Amino acid sequence: MPRSIITLTTDFGLSDHFVATMKGVIRSISPLADIIDITHDLRPFEITQASFLLSQAYPYFPKKTVHVAVVDPGVGTARRPILVEAAGQYFIGPDNGIFGMIFSREKKHKVRAITAEQYFLQPLSRTFHGRDVFAPAAAHLTRGVPPSKFGKLIKDYLKPMSEKPIQTGRRIWTGTILHVDRFGNLITNFHKDDFPTLQLRPFELAIGAVTIRRLALTYSECESNEPVLIIGSSGYAEVAVNQGSAAQLLGCGVGAPVELTIY
Amino acid sequence: MPRSIITLTTDFGLSDHFVATMKGVIRSISPLADIIDITHDLRPFEITQASFLLSQAYPYFPKKTVHVAVVDPGVGTARRPILVEAAGQYFIGPDNGIFGMIFSREKKHKVRAITAEQYFLQPLSRTFHGRDVFAPAAAHLTRGVPPSKFGKLIKDYLKPMSEKPIQTGRRIWTGTILHVDRFGNLITNFHKDDFPTLQLRPFELAIGAVTIRRLALTYSECESNEPVLIIGSSGYAEVAVNQGSAAQLLGCGVGAPVELTIY
Amino acid sequence: MPRSIITLTTDFGLSDHFVATMKGVIRSISPLADIIDITHDLRPFEITQASFLLSQAYPYFPKKTVHVAVVDPGVGTARRPILVEAAGQYFIGPDNGIFGMIFSREKKHKVRAITAEQYFLQPLSRTFHGRDVFAPAAAHLTRGVPPSKFGKLIKDYLKPMSEKPIQTGRRIWTGTILHVDRFGNLITNFHKDDFPTLQLRPFELAIGAVTIRRLALTYSECESNEPVLIIGSSGYAEVAVNQGSAAQLLGCGVGAPVELTIY
Repeated sequence: MPRSIITLTTDFGLSDHFVATMKGVIRSISPLADIIDITHDLRPFEITQASFLLSQAYPYFPKKTVHVAVVDPGVGTARRPILVEAAGQYFIGPDNGIFGMIFSREKKHKVRAITAEQYFLQPLSRTFHGRDVFAPAAAHLTRGVPPSKFGKLIKDYLKPMSEKPIQTGRRIWTGTILHVDRFGNLITNFHKDDFPTLQLRPFELAIGAVTIRRLALTYSECESNEPVLIIGSSGYAEVAVNQGSAAQLLGCGVGAPVELTIY
Repeated sequence: MPRSIITLTTDFGLSDHFVATMKGVIRSISPLADIIDITHDLRPFEITQASFLLSQAYPYFPKKTVHVAVVDPGVGTARRPILVEAAGQYFIGPDNGIFGMIFSREKKHKVRAITAEQYFLQPLSRTFHGRDVFAPAAAHLTRGVPPSKFGKLIKDYLKPMSEKPIQTGRRIWTGTILHVDRFGNLITNFHKDDFPTLQLRPFELAIGAVTIRRLALTYSECESNEPVLIIGSSGYAEVAVNQGSAAQLLGCGVGAPVELTIY
Repeated sequence: MPRSIITLTTDFGLSDHFVATMKGVIRSISPLADIIDITHDLRPFEITQASFLLSQAYPYFPKKTVHVAVVDPGVGTARRPILVEAAGQYFIGPDNGIFGMIFSREKKHKVRAITAEQYFLQPLSRTFHGRDVFAPAAAHLTRGVPPSKFGKLIKDYLKPMSEKPIQTGRRIWTGTILHVDRFGNLITNFHKDDFPTLQLRPFELAIGAVTIRRLALTYSECESNEPVLIIGSSGYAEVAVNQGSAAQLLGCGVGAPVELTIY
């Protein structure tokens, strides 16, 4: 029998006991759960990055996977824990926008406020809901507790700001950098499904002090030190430099503006 | 049937093959063991930090979990490998004080010197006992080898220095910083169970150049840049700054002195 | 029944979604596979380091383990994906020399070009073969697909340059530093099996500005700041400094030349 999977996405790092403690809690409640780390290396409080990385990974996980995401500057305050059902999978975390990109990809999603305190660890700390709320809720879910037992459906959860580019002229859109990956590639919010002509027509992408006019198919086909555009594995257009860091070369990071003109 | 858990706490980092090699050894001996990392990010030779992190995590793990801790500057010398039974769980590592905080929390503990070389990998290296001694011993334990088979009970294992504050006046205690977490929170050795009045009465906590008089319930309730005291999720009082690093703000780290006065 | 193991060795780091996405792909195809990380902390494009670390870890894994290694500057170009059978285990990755040290240790190895696209994810991206080619191939292998189904045996795969020292005089060999571990130990390519007299006779090892004449058995037996030679847990002679970094002390890194004279 396949074992349930719980994934973890946090800003806890791996040099403290936090992540391991959550894993201990999960396995104490659900001895057959397998736990897979998405990342714990988010900069503290970077909710948008968490949302992006999770949105890239979840489509590749099996049905019924439970994704726990804890980037939670408001821990201990009134923000609610939520349980999201989308794409046949589950998402558990604080109601602070961390599942924004899931909501925008999966139009059919259901959100519940988790209020059933019998699934929390007691006494409930005010500063470590990853351990006391989110991990145990996920563990109980993998043991077959139905979502409805955790709390009522809600409509007033935090909705995402659109992460899509804005049209600012007849052929011009202003976008942004969603993520900088380890290799220094700058992932824009121009998705190939939203901009199908990007792969067919001449274009100009202005970022930092440069304008890119070339679309490459692989990292290795561009000159060294030449920034090019690539439709990345995520479907988003990304600015890349062969065996170098586009982020460093262009001095750009998350949130930097990008202007695309398609002719 | 639930699978046994072996946790790993080391200073090996994740950029070498050391940790993976230990996991290969474990799985070769005990194919059904699940392995969970506590941390491998300890600074080389930081035995006290290892002890602290492990002491924070183990209470959340199921009975019979085997915790392997390898921070071992004396590898290859006469220090003994030990097997500790405490709290229904097992702890395996060098006899160098790494289980100090387990001993002080779990008064009923049994310690054995591991001498049964049939449970070691052969030939035994002098520099990688994580692979050759500790990992295989843990793996054999999860396969049902009883603790008594590994060696005799001993009394002369390295005892911990107390990690508790010292009373230096009628209302004054001198303590220290046990740990700095990823967020820069300074975890003191004042535990809420030892200082129950801390949450009830006015106090002054002097650390670095500042004196803190305010106890907060959550990180988010304090002003930005205002250091406050919080009873952390571990039960220890910690110095925190909302969305900032107390360690950086106060210029303090592990071992820094802290003076608490309760009025 | 023991679960199959798939190990992962990449330069993807742990701050992106790449590794987790590969794990999702694996578990979607092979729900019973256990996944163990070797390292993801390789510097981008460091094929030789990947080869070294994998060659250190694989001998400790059970038969039939599938090792996936993805350090792949040529992703999306004509370099082939390969499947290696050696030592009763499997190795999957690009044909770029990443398995060089496996080939040189395991003389009896078979190499196949993976061409069976039915085992790839579709549509195949040009930039993330870890997700689309290597992870799914590994997962199908653990489900019992025989190696021959993945593609034909080939002979013209990239052969390793020898990583062995070169004899340059009657008693003199020139070698190099294969790896610097987290502790700053400099692992040379002088293996105890190739240089059995190293442990028996006087020697001089010249590295950087120093000449080492002393062989130690454990890290702790040398003076602080005295570089010594140790036969490390891998069987290679390594330059070490007790509780310090030989790499830092000597200003040496991977690729630095080493000259050994045995008298």
